[in-house]
Amino acid sequence: MAKIGVIGSGTWGTALAVLLSGNGHQAELWSAVPAEVEALTATRRHPNLGDTPIPENIRITGDLQEAMEEKELLVLSVPSVYVRETAGKMAPFLKKGQVVTNVAKGIEDGSLKTLSEVIEEELPAACVTVLSGPSHAEEVSRGLPTTCVAGAHKKEDAELVQSLFMSRVFRVYTSPDMLGIELGGALKNVIALAAGIADGLGCGDNTKAALITRGIAEITRLGTVMGGRPETFSGLTGIGDLIVTCASMHSRNRRAGILIGKGYTMEEAMKEVNMVVEGVYSARAARALSEKYQVSMPIVEQVNQVLFEGKSAKDALYELMLRDRRMENSDLVWKA
Amino acid sequence: MAKIGVIGSGTWGTALAVLLSGNGHQAELWSAVPAEVEALTATRRHPNLGDTPIPENIRITGDLQEAMEEKELLVLSVPSVYVRETAGKMAPFLKKGQVVTNVAKGIEDGSLKTLSEVIEEELPAACVTVLSGPSHAEEVSRGLPTTCVAGAHKKEDAELVQSLFMSRVFRVYTSPDMLGIELGGALKNVIALAAGIADGLGCGDNTKAALITRGIAEITRLGTVMGGRPETFSGLTGIGDLIVTCASMHSRNRRAGILIGKGYTMEEAMKEVNMVVEGVYSARAARALSEKYQVSMPIVEQVNQVLFEGKSAKDALYELMLRDRRMENSDLVWKA
Repeated sequence: MAKIGVIGSGTWGTALAVLLSGNGHQAELWSAVPAEVEALTATRRHPNLGDTPIPENIRITGDLQEAMEEKELLVLSVPSVYVRETAGKMAPFLKKGQVVTNVAKGIEDGSLKTLSEVIEEELPAACVTVLSGPSHAEEVSRGLPTTCVAGAHKKEDAELVQSLFMSRVFRVYTSPDMLGIELGGALKNVIALAAGIADGLGCGDNTKAALITRGIAEITRLGTVMGGRPETFSGLTGIGDLIVTCASMHSRNRRAGILIGKGYTMEEAMKEVNMVVEGVYSARAARALSEKYQVSMPIVEQVNQVLFEGKSAKDALYELMLRDRRMENSDLVWKA
Repeated sequence: MAKIGVIGSGTWGTALAVLLSGNGHQAELWSAVPAEVEALTATRRHPNLGDTPIPENIRITGDLQEAMEEKELLVLSVPSVYVRETAGKMAPFLKKGQVVTNVAKGIEDGSLKTLSEVIEEELPAACVTVLSGPSHAEEVSRGLPTTCVAGAHKKEDAELVQSLFMSRVFRVYTSPDMLGIELGGALKNVIALAAGIADGLGCGDNTKAALITRGIAEITRLGTVMGGRPETFSGLTGIGDLIVTCASMHSRNRRAGILIGKGYTMEEAMKEVNMVVEGVYSARAARALSEKYQVSMPIVEQVNQVLFEGKSAKDALYELMLRDRRMENSDLVWKA
């Protein structure tokens, strides 16, 4: 039995607290919003997790110090835009060597830093780790079999996260490639937007599989130049997470893409989906990274032109189809 | 304008003949079955391709010599079990250096040879190439954007195939890795069966994404030991084709898997689907290859136990979830 603080009571944080509690651990769930603390305490349900009850032994609190005190692990599960601010608030209560697992996905606007780099800046005393993979919160809360990867610089930190989360229905692998894990998780949303756009244009499964496959190929090209490992982009946190995102109507990125494919502008689609569409920010970050590292990313480029430069979705798609004839992988060698 | 013989008038052969004709080529479509030649000639429709007409300039014939004479390219599009026999029949009419493109997917039972190896044995005078990728015939015949890979030993052969097939809606990449292309295409059906079984058990998108991702990981482990390139398994003919197969109800492998997940035996599922389920043969071949090359393939192993040894689908799934805790990629190195 371990004591674990879950910092952020959104859908994913709550689902993970329920999972940890089911594994016999003592989880404490923190929210920045007093009304949320009250509602979760009163109803013992998260509004986006259907009928799954929040077990009574999970303590819900608005007191950050209390949520962090004497914990073997802290799970940071706030939206990516709040990661720096929340980590900053955590600093005074953090003990040296505390293992912190970030589960949000994104790249910081402007600085183009990964979220673990942001947390390491705000919490230099922490051992920062990540947990990522194809994992809709709603399915995890229903106990449907799910796999994730715990990434860390140090093996023992990754194995701690693995041992606390792993269960009969939640299989956790470990990996030292934090950068690859984080880049895959953040950049997948751009490709999910492109896949949604193709759906909105009335394309079929062939087109979507092509966008997913060539999409992860360009993420891999960029990510390996930045220092990530190709195996990671072919793994659960890369192609695996991308497949789940592109298959599901739960995905806001895909839903926004479908509307854009049907002719909505980016602003109209955002308004209709009525939530933050992470892929719109990631698209800008991906283009900035592709320019910074001089890596060709044709799908990212076309998504940016559709989102920000008024290009029609149909023109963008046919431009991708009619690029120069080329090899699938230019590194492979012909016999003759 | 090139003259092209399409040997095999199934769904895929017919769709490719229509595509080639649309590209301005003179395609001739051969069937071994006189009744099929008659029906296609009379209706100018393939029964599995909806309303797509077979253009009048496509000649339909039962005469193999005529179909092969004076052709720049021969496309071999018969079911995998008929490849050796059909190639043998073609031998007397084949001119030296004739480029032949195989589009069937499979591994020969018993010999465990790839189909291009089988064709090279029967047609030693031919330059054998392959065309593969995420491409439901029905979507190609409707003109929905699709991508494929032309694989060959020689660059000029691959580029010939690329130039003949490529169009505004059919993008063709080239690759020298024929072995990787063929192994991915054949082995994907085993994973599609596993994904179907998970669907039948009531699992969600998380489980399916995990099976697809870990499935291509074990295909990659085997395929690279056999001499294929890891990039190929991460590409259109590997993960791309697997995604399309696992997403679609067109897939017999997936449909059979769903029934098995719901408790049907393999025999009952085959009877209900009422067609050859390629993945059942591929499962046996994959297990034989994993033993021959001493490569661990846990999903292939569980699928075999369910298909041939009466193991329950649910037990097989939980056995996969509860295997030893491990790294996602054992080649990666920890900092500490």
